[in-house]
Amino acid sequence: MSKRKRYRSAEKTLGTSPGTLTYIGEEIEHATKIKRIEYNATDYRVDESSKLSACRLPGNNAPFVGWIDVDGIHEPKVVEALGQQFRLHPLLLEDVMNTEQKPKIDLYDDTIVFVTLKNLHHSGQRQEIETEHVSFVLGKGFLISFQEERRKDIFEPVIERIRASAGKTRRNGADYLLFALMDLIVDHYFLITERIGEKMDELEDYIIQERANQQTLATLYTLKRELAHIRRVVNPLRDIVGVLLREESDLIRPGTVPYLRDLADHVSQIIELLESYREQIAGLMDVYYSIVNNRMNSVMKTLTIVSAIFIPLTFIAGIYGMNFDNMPELRTKTGYFWTLAAMTAIAIGEIIYFKRKKWM
Amino acid sequence: MSKRKRYRSAEKTLGTSPGTLTYIGEEIEHATKIKRIEYNATDYRVDESSKLSACRLPGNNAPFVGWIDVDGIHEPKVVEALGQQFRLHPLLLEDVMNTEQKPKIDLYDDTIVFVTLKNLHHSGQRQEIETEHVSFVLGKGFLISFQEERRKDIFEPVIERIRASAGKTRRNGADYLLFALMDLIVDHYFLITERIGEKMDELEDYIIQERANQQTLATLYTLKRELAHIRRVVNPLRDIVGVLLREESDLIRPGTVPYLRDLADHVSQIIELLESYREQIAGLMDVYYSIVNNRMNSVMKTLTIVSAIFIPLTFIAGIYGMNFDNMPELRTKTGYFWTLAAMTAIAIGEIIYFKRKKWM
Amino acid sequence: MSKRKRYRSAEKTLGTSPGTLTYIGEEIEHATKIKRIEYNATDYRVDESSKLSACRLPGNNAPFVGWIDVDGIHEPKVVEALGQQFRLHPLLLEDVMNTEQKPKIDLYDDTIVFVTLKNLHHSGQRQEIETEHVSFVLGKGFLISFQEERRKDIFEPVIERIRASAGKTRRNGADYLLFALMDLIVDHYFLITERIGEKMDELEDYIIQERANQQTLATLYTLKRELAHIRRVVNPLRDIVGVLLREESDLIRPGTVPYLRDLADHVSQIIELLESYREQIAGLMDVYYSIVNNRMNSVMKTLTIVSAIFIPLTFIAGIYGMNFDNMPELRTKTGYFWTLAAMTAIAIGEIIYFKRKKWM
Amino acid sequence: MSKRKRYRSAEKTLGTSPGTLTYIGEEIEHATKIKRIEYNATDYRVDESSKLSACRLPGNNAPFVGWIDVDGIHEPKVVEALGQQFRLHPLLLEDVMNTEQKPKIDLYDDTIVFVTLKNLHHSGQRQEIETEHVSFVLGKGFLISFQEERRKDIFEPVIERIRASAGKTRRNGADYLLFALMDLIVDHYFLITERIGEKMDELEDYIIQERANQQTLATLYTLKRELAHIRRVVNPLRDIVGVLLREESDLIRPGTVPYLRDLADHVSQIIELLESYREQIAGLMDVYYSIVNNRMNSVMKTLTIVSAIFIPLTFIAGIYGMNFDNMPELRTKTGYFWTLAAMTAIAIGEIIYFKRKKWM
Amino acid sequence: MSKRKRYRSAEKTLGTSPGTLTYIGEEIEHATKIKRIEYNATDYRVDESSKLSACRLPGNNAPFVGWIDVDGIHEPKVVEALGQQFRLHPLLLEDVMNTEQKPKIDLYDDTIVFVTLKNLHHSGQRQEIETEHVSFVLGKGFLISFQEERRKDIFEPVIERIRASAGKTRRNGADYLLFALMDLIVDHYFLITERIGEKMDELEDYIIQERANQQTLATLYTLKRELAHIRRVVNPLRDIVGVLLREESDLIRPGTVPYLRDLADHVSQIIELLESYREQIAGLMDVYYSIVNNRMNSVMKTLTIVSAIFIPLTFIAGIYGMNFDNMPELRTKTGYFWTLAAMTAIAIGEIIYFKRKKWM
Repeated sequence: MSKRKRYRSAEKTLGTSPGTLTYIGEEIEHATKIKRIEYNATDYRVDESSKLSACRLPGNNAPFVGWIDVDGIHEPKVVEALGQQFRLHPLLLEDVMNTEQKPKIDLYDDTIVFVTLKNLHHSGQRQEIETEHVSFVLGKGFLISFQEERRKDIFEPVIERIRASAGKTRRNGADYLLFALMDLIVDHYFLITERIGEKMDELEDYIIQERANQQTLATLYTLKRELAHIRRVVNPLRDIVGVLLREESDLIRPGTVPYLRDLADHVSQIIELLESYREQIAGLMDVYYSIVNNRMNSVMKTLTIVSAIFIPLTFIAGIYGMNFDNMPELRTKTGYFWTLAAMTAIAIGEIIYFKRKKWM
Repeated sequence: MSKRKRYRSAEKTLGTSPGTLTYIGEEIEHATKIKRIEYNATDYRVDESSKLSACRLPGNNAPFVGWIDVDGIHEPKVVEALGQQFRLHPLLLEDVMNTEQKPKIDLYDDTIVFVTLKNLHHSGQRQEIETEHVSFVLGKGFLISFQEERRKDIFEPVIERIRASAGKTRRNGADYLLFALMDLIVDHYFLITERIGEKMDELEDYIIQERANQQTLATLYTLKRELAHIRRVVNPLRDIVGVLLREESDLIRPGTVPYLRDLADHVSQIIELLESYREQIAGLMDVYYSIVNNRMNSVMKTLTIVSAIFIPLTFIAGIYGMNFDNMPELRTKTGYFWTLAAMTAIAIGEIIYFKRKKWM
Repeated sequence: MSKRKRYRSAEKTLGTSPGTLTYIGEEIEHATKIKRIEYNATDYRVDESSKLSACRLPGNNAPFVGWIDVDGIHEPKVVEALGQQFRLHPLLLEDVMNTEQKPKIDLYDDTIVFVTLKNLHHSGQRQEIETEHVSFVLGKGFLISFQEERRKDIFEPVIERIRASAGKTRRNGADYLLFALMDLIVDHYFLITERIGEKMDELEDYIIQERANQQTLATLYTLKRELAHIRRVVNPLRDIVGVLLREESDLIRPGTVPYLRDLADHVSQIIELLESYREQIAGLMDVYYSIVNNRMNSVMKTLTIVSAIFIPLTFIAGIYGMNFDNMPELRTKTGYFWTLAAMTAIAIGEIIYFKRKKWM
Repeated sequence: MSKRKRYRSAEKTLGTSPGTLTYIGEEIEHATKIKRIEYNATDYRVDESSKLSACRLPGNNAPFVGWIDVDGIHEPKVVEALGQQFRLHPLLLEDVMNTEQKPKIDLYDDTIVFVTLKNLHHSGQRQEIETEHVSFVLGKGFLISFQEERRKDIFEPVIERIRASAGKTRRNGADYLLFALMDLIVDHYFLITERIGEKMDELEDYIIQERANQQTLATLYTLKRELAHIRRVVNPLRDIVGVLLREESDLIRPGTVPYLRDLADHVSQIIELLESYREQIAGLMDVYYSIVNNRMNSVMKTLTIVSAIFIPLTFIAGIYGMNFDNMPELRTKTGYFWTLAAMTAIAIGEIIYFKRKKWM
Repeated sequence: MSKRKRYRSAEKTLGTSPGTLTYIGEEIEHATKIKRIEYNATDYRVDESSKLSACRLPGNNAPFVGWIDVDGIHEPKVVEALGQQFRLHPLLLEDVMNTEQKPKIDLYDDTIVFVTLKNLHHSGQRQEIETEHVSFVLGKGFLISFQEERRKDIFEPVIERIRASAGKTRRNGADYLLFALMDLIVDHYFLITERIGEKMDELEDYIIQERANQQTLATLYTLKRELAHIRRVVNPLRDIVGVLLREESDLIRPGTVPYLRDLADHVSQIIELLESYREQIAGLMDVYYSIVNNRMNSVMKTLTIVSAIFIPLTFIAGIYGMNFDNMPELRTKTGYFWTLAAMTAIAIGEIIYFKRKKWM
């Protein structure tokens, strides 16, 4: 959500022909890394720093699943070359490179499924939420994944699983691989969401113990914006998985459907969590305001009581402080004491009155 | 809604292969108890502590209904063994063990209907709402029910009914049994909802009799969260029963449909109740704030009236308390009494003014 | 909406077999009254206190319409006997007796249409809204109506119309009779809604003439709850009539469709009225709060002006009330008068300032 | 929206047979005026005060379009006679006479389209919005229009166009005539809506220049209710035109469809305008409250500053006004001046403090 | 959004026949400019100031795409002449000239697609948003674009692209040209939206650094209205592109579909941005009010503390300022000092009390 970046992007593209490849995002210096992974139930090969030219379209009945894991989307040349090798539509490539593209699914004929998502993780000291643009191209027997160049390849755990075991991923096709990678991203969403839940529980304790201040409110406001951001990232995923489930081409095999359904389930669980957090924040704000209001009220009551008791008494004192020559009371012997007694009586009367009104 | 638990679950599963059985929930020490109940219109058998191996798939035309009531879902081995015996999908078993799974229905081919719900009951001293994860697997001629291990088997009343009479449950199939168990859970929802209604009526009395305080507001806030929790538990049930009603496989027989429709009806009645409670809470909060505001206003008015009356009078007293040598009024004989008279007149004038303005 | 009753109902039915007939509602002592009315275009017969045994299913081509008007639903035996004579589903009978059942329509095969509604009328001194549970069973050539036992049979006007004229009702079938009875209930809704409108206009006058107080707010709150109650009663009717309109069985004849459409129209008119009343209440509350707020503001302004004028003046008086030996001003001849003049000048200055700021 | 009228209508019709013709609306003394207009591309005839008997059903292939313009709907006899001559359904006639009927469309078989609308115009001194009940009956080759009896026939401009030119209306059928009349009514909506827009711009100027008062708020509240009223009148029109567009009978000819689409467009433009006005009112209210709140705040700040400065000073003056025999300061020569200096210092200190806090 | 204009338009058209060409918009003096552009993959011709008579319908199989770019819509004669040459429906021409027409799409048979939009750009010193009415008529092999007469032809960049390269636009048909022009307009929306984002970030900084004042609120209110205006302009575009995508006539060729899908994507991205800005504005207003409220609270606390401390002390001073003859304390030697000590003690006591209550 870096602000400066955002403003430049529209001016950059205004008037250029649609489908022109322009990288929109933070500037990056490292070169694109390409991993090529091929596997089936019995065997696997991982080529950690593959050359572009080695990435070829697997034959229709290739005995393995081909996965090209592209780490870095800032070099138009690389993306364009890949696009030509796999015959991808220029608009698809534009979406791969545009880090501001919101999550969506596009079907190109019956041969290509294009999915673009956001991965979320905490990063740095202040644990801010970082958003990473991720795209998948699913074709017959192959999957290409694109991610922004970062310190770490987010798909490492899946590569590890392929290496380690001859388990479910190895026994299934490219569609299952797509599911596994999306599932990984959804797991990251869970992590992020739970951290927010943790923060909110902390804030709730703060507020209910009446230790909250203006700062707490600012934090709630920030959390609210984070929730809105996550919601914008997660919500489209529901439709994306829905399209995959309804998709009747050969790309998604029946055996993968229960897994996709499970994924859809997870997504809607996150959406529900986010929704309940949003309600909770609204509730907490109400409680906070009610506490502030309540404290203000007791401040005002104190002022009122002190004023209402002492102002009349001071007036009486004022009367007998007047310098008229002829003020008979002043000359009596017990006048002072009667006055003090009267003042005490008035004060007690007022206190009783306030107690009855439940102001004290 | 124990908070600590929640945060661990996502980290536990991040990066593991989907379908891996992991128990997510509170730690439990007791072993899983398995009851095996077989019945038909004329006969029944209840095996209170059945062994896993005795749980077998009934033949297609078995002359009885088989019900396996599993009490405890924390032992992956037990659940896995049951899964193998009844050929259940690994994702189904994952959902059985994940106490955080939200209510849903899944159809596996035309042979298995999987339903997972939450049972709600009050527990302990403070009568907090406890949520229990319950799952049902309905197959041809059999039903498996899973529940968390608690002090009491929640399905006891249905077992009693099977024991006691040769009534409706005995004359009907596994689909009717599923309905009966779900109906029992919905009856629990009614109980919970009514308790909340009771609490709200109490609070309403409190608030309308102006005896409410900051604590009352906190209780309203808690009730609101409880309502939101129940809503999240009950809402999906509407869809679940809807799917069962539309389901056209042989698993749900036409005779069971009116009962399911009745159940759907009860569910939407609860949802409506919850909705009306939510509105009522919002209304009560408004009334509370209006009362607080009103009281504040009368506090402020009192302050204003007292100040507005006595401040000018005190000023007059102050004038004649000045020590100028030449202050002719001070030397007159009746000056003091005229001053007192003037003060009284001013006070009365102000009181009349305030009365006219309806501030007093 | 008697509260005590509500809480007992869920405990009563928890664990009992579904379809068990239990009367849920206020206790009633009178016996059930059964009227049997038979009519066609040329003839009619009304049997005011029919015996149960006389209520029989009319033949398929009976030359008359049979209407059984049951006044009282608190005797399970009577309802059960009727159920057996007309072969009604146990769940239908359960809904007839459950006064907490919300309005709905159920179709049992193509031979029975079951509709349950609420009738609303004002009753007693305080003109509270009373809700009465009403059910209709429409079959081929006959209609059974159930109502709670009250002082008056609400369907009397329709019986009168049958008696008086050989008009529309007499020329039409049981489906038209069902429409006529539902129309009567909807007319009651109109009455109730208009009374609420009257009350609201009164309140509006009160509020706009600034004569409202805390009590007015309480009345608005009560009206809001009444509106919510009526809405819950009326809203389902829209769907019910919709189902009757789409129903393609022989039970609803084409000639009755325009009348049902008219009924649907009335229902949506009431719903719209209720909606507009709800908005109006919200608007009135806003106006009320704005008036209260406004009055508070003028109270505060008065305080501020009085304080701001007199506090500085009192301070000046205080200075010359000090007892220092050496205070040259005190010894001058005109000091007192200059001081008074200065005080007047300050007061006038402040008043001009406040006038300019539009605070006075 | 005359209130008294409203309350009587429900009682009037309670218990009467549906379809009974009762005029519901303001009392009117003039007799119904009936105009009969017949025209085709080449010729036209206008019979300004036609007799009922002359209104006959045009033959199926009549060489002209027949339009019967009924001005006055308060005489049941006239409406009933027309109904019999054109074989209209009694419920249709009931809707024609019920001025409280909300806008709707009804199709009677494939031969009659019934549309009922509200015309809106400003009237009288105070430019209040007046609502007029208008109905159309479109049949094969003829149109009957009903309007309430008012000073002016609202359809005069269309009659003028028929008289003046042999233009579009003359070349088209009864369906185009229906469109032309509805278009006229929609043009009136535009006028009304624009007047409201004008008023709102005025109010906006008032509020933004901070010249608003309690009265302004009342006007906003009235505007809000007027908007709600117009919305209720205009909204159903969207559906009505939608039904006419989808209607596949011979009554609506393909050539009229673009005009109806244009009408639908205008209606949704008005609805959008109303919606944006509603939002604008809400926004203006917020601004108004924020200004009031802001002014209140500066009032309170003034009070606080004056009090906070002078109260401590007055206290100091009070100390040296005490009459203790032994108060050494009083006897010093410069005590008085030091005291004055201290007071000035305190006052300046406080002013600096408040300036820093940005309260001044 | 010039207000005066708006009010005249409805009166202008009231009672005129539908389809009458009237220019509704600001008055313009320049004559209409017409450009005629013809191009195919290999060749192109641009006629900058074409005559009306030269604009002819291209033959069905013309070897080039014909684009007529009309700059100025205020001359009914010109528009009418074009309409006759291309056989356009009068209602279409009416929509072209009505600058208040909201965005929409109309299909005339299968041969004409009519799209009308708004272009948005910043203009003048104060960077206000200016709205320009733009219409497109897409036929077989040709496109007519209409725009209001302004200083600059907004479609210049596309003409440039046609001139410069033999790229995508040149290789594709009139449907792609329509897409390219709409894409240009959507790019303008992005620019506008981003400027608003910039302004909002500025305001956010202002508010969070507590430098906001009443002016800031007014700016937020203006931004809110601008957002509402843009939303009204952009929202219909979603449906328009949706209709183009579903349109199955020959006018939209399959090759253009991915581009239209991309456009739909951009539109929904803008709508989402606008939505998130709206939420952000609401959030900022809340924060602003909370800050104002907070500041008010500290003002009030200061008042309360000062008053509560000094009022009782002043009262004590007042007592010993009384002039009773018999006041024993006054005569003691240390009375004055004890009194001062007591006052100090009371002040310290109060300060401790307030500190404990966290008011200081």
